Amino acid sequence: MNNLFTDLPTTLPEELVEVLAENQHVRIERIVSTGHASPEGFWYDRAEAEWVVVLKGEAKLFFEDDDEPIHMRNRDFVNIPAHRKHRGEWTTPDEPTVWLAVFYGGE
Amino acid sequence: MNNLFTDLPTTLPEELVEVLAENQHVRIERIVSTGHASPEGFWYDRAEAEWVVVLKGEAKLFFEDDDEPIHMRNRDFVNIPAHRKHRGEWTTPDEPTVWLAVFYGGE
Repeated sequence: MNNLFTDLPTTLPEELVEVLAENQHVRIERIVSTGHASPEGFWYDRAEAEWVVVLKGEAKLFFEDDDEPIHMRNRDFVNIPAHRKHRGEWTTPDEPTVWLAVFYGGE
Repeated sequence: MNNLFTDLPTTLPEELVEVLAENQHVRIERIVSTGHASPEGFWYDRAEAEWVVVLKGEAKLFFEDDDEPIHMRNRDFVNIPAHRKHRGEWTTPDEPTVWLAVFYGGE
């Protein structure tokens, strides 16, 4: 047994990504951001789908096909189909933002 | 966007299971228990692996190959290999217990 808030850093040079479980079809990650955002002009364009929830902190996620970012707060989740382009626009600098992400391929 | 605590019931005749995302390899579920436990003598023996976290409430999960149940509190998670027999021994009757579970097969 482990806890999602174990060893939570407060400042990080880069986002901290830890794989909690995986096989060839799925990868479960804890991601900790401390004010990080995607680089200017960068878009994630993943071959895998991603289901992701915010469990601490706040974040703004921008989908290329949307007009403005969605503001995600505690326990908000989205399901992102493969190749739906998106970027992390903002995470709160006041506290770590903890994401739980499930990447899954196939279909 | 949706929230994991949306429409949280407080009493339920049976556990409430909602599929949040799935494909042929993975299924992500929100499970709400209000004091529920597995029936006496019942053991889950799943063909799929299960990664599961408690996000509200408390639960005791008993693995057949352990001497006593583990007591899971907020944000505690476990990864349960396929066919590792286990049962829900107890969930707190004082508040809903919210589980996020990822079932994944293959390997």
